[in-house]
Amino acid sequence: MMNNKIKLLQDKINKDLEAIYNNGPNSLVKTFNYVISGKGKRIRPLLTLLTSKSLFGDYNKSYNAALAVEILHNFTLVHDDIMDNDTLRHGKQTVHEKWDISTAILVGDAMLAKSINILSESNYNDNLLKSFNSALMSVCEGQALDKEFETQKNINQEEYFTMIEKKTSYLIAMPIEIGALAYNYALKDAKKLFNFGLSIGKAFQIQDDFLEIMSNPEIMNKSLDSDILLGKKTYPIILCNEVDKNFIKEIIKNKNTKEIISKIRKFILDNKLDAEIKNTIENLYQEANNCIQTIDFQSNELVNFVNKIKTRKK
Amino acid sequence: MMNNKIKLLQDKINKDLEAIYNNGPNSLVKTFNYVISGKGKRIRPLLTLLTSKSLFGDYNKSYNAALAVEILHNFTLVHDDIMDNDTLRHGKQTVHEKWDISTAILVGDAMLAKSINILSESNYNDNLLKSFNSALMSVCEGQALDKEFETQKNINQEEYFTMIEKKTSYLIAMPIEIGALAYNYALKDAKKLFNFGLSIGKAFQIQDDFLEIMSNPEIMNKSLDSDILLGKKTYPIILCNEVDKNFIKEIIKNKNTKEIISKIRKFILDNKLDAEIKNTIENLYQEANNCIQTIDFQSNELVNFVNKIKTRKK
Repeated sequence: MMNNKIKLLQDKINKDLEAIYNNGPNSLVKTFNYVISGKGKRIRPLLTLLTSKSLFGDYNKSYNAALAVEILHNFTLVHDDIMDNDTLRHGKQTVHEKWDISTAILVGDAMLAKSINILSESNYNDNLLKSFNSALMSVCEGQALDKEFETQKNINQEEYFTMIEKKTSYLIAMPIEIGALAYNYALKDAKKLFNFGLSIGKAFQIQDDFLEIMSNPEIMNKSLDSDILLGKKTYPIILCNEVDKNFIKEIIKNKNTKEIISKIRKFILDNKLDAEIKNTIENLYQEANNCIQTIDFQSNELVNFVNKIKTRKK
Repeated sequence: MMNNKIKLLQDKINKDLEAIYNNGPNSLVKTFNYVISGKGKRIRPLLTLLTSKSLFGDYNKSYNAALAVEILHNFTLVHDDIMDNDTLRHGKQTVHEKWDISTAILVGDAMLAKSINILSESNYNDNLLKSFNSALMSVCEGQALDKEFETQKNINQEEYFTMIEKKTSYLIAMPIEIGALAYNYALKDAKKLFNFGLSIGKAFQIQDDFLEIMSNPEIMNKSLDSDILLGKKTYPIILCNEVDKNFIKEIIKNKNTKEIISKIRKFILDNKLDAEIKNTIENLYQEANNCIQTIDFQSNELVNFVNKIKTRKK
């Protein structure tokens, strides 16, 4: 599928998301649609739809599930932004910043409720519901670990990978899996796709964190500053700690985040951690590819889309 | 079912709730079990189980759903307590008070996730899932209306009833309905039970608010003070506003909540609003009874339990 086809699909998703919740308490409808109209890339619903398209030639049966996935993802963003004190999301004020914490808690809850309602009203099979629900619990546990790690200095790579698998990768793997399960695909093969998703989810996250730290913060438009000061553990940070467990602790005493980031960047290059990070990302993509060797795709939309994300520069 | 049978059932529910989540991130397991071990009366799971028992002679099939309902209910309490700034719940510190807001948001999310997981792992039918999920969305909308009403002076009875129906009654009606649906009871008759629950839910709420305002605040152990100062709309408050729309507004300028409550109590008695409130409660119970006239109960556990709640004095 070419770029403009992806663009058309994003536009369709955006339009349909806007039609989902317009009848309810004003305070909820307004904030729900504020969140849902954010400029996200809709990667997760696209993964669902492109999985269906690649396997079965269409995506009608998984379309509602794809919308539910995007709403679920937005629920996690709204609540995570409160927990992480983030003030901006996709260039807009976060809900708790624009309104207040109560509003943000409640609209997050309503988004989660709506995503589950969409699924149950679409009469999906049990396997799809179980996949969706496991991801929901996993995301909560991943966020709990992420918060726990903030105050723990010595997180090793294994602990880190457990955390991002739960927090990030499940919300990449499940959307892919349900793109297959919506068509009653064999569970055994759906699981291969799920594992493919777990690996690319980790690769995406490490790529994100690496690009963010190595590039101009204005470009990524995220809150790297607050993440580092909060003590968030990312793969580059874990590797810095492996080289020198006091390095990060020392440099964040200086509260000038621009300086902190440029010091981290220099440390990464001086210690050739950039090569190690790139190598890890490459291995994860390789691991992902191994998972889907025996999958009989009709077409390449899913794989092409993943490659597009893999080769992005920002 | 006699009181000691209810007590045995409560003990069983408590024991099984404690076994639900013991394997996960420490911060989440600890707080989840702190909440779930609160001294709630387990009214909602009891409604599910007693509905099954009254209709079918046992409750094995609805037991997991009953646990899911109680966990869902606790999710709403944890998040509502943040939004309402409540510091105590069942005599214990609320989660956001004992830990912090992030912890409370996250454990609430995890409780919701767990309740949905229990349902999907128990392979319930679509009708039961739909009932559960509708209640979830309804509770979010009810809470949104409740928060909206805090800053609105002129809420009429109709608006008030819409709000408590969504916020409170759905979480009474759904537990009853799923006690029937777990046994594939006819949808038409399940709906009668649901409507029975909507009416008793409203009656319970009005009774609670009335008892709370008319009795010693220490007895109810809730946060009447903060509710009144926040501008929360309860049925007694709505009736006071109907008699004199400036009465509440004037008396809450005095921040001594004991004096405020005693003034409200006097106003209610002077204007014979107590009789009106009792009459409304009685009508709601009558309305409830009318809903279940054609239901063919095998035994009286559900009706007896509802009567027990109806005749409580605190």
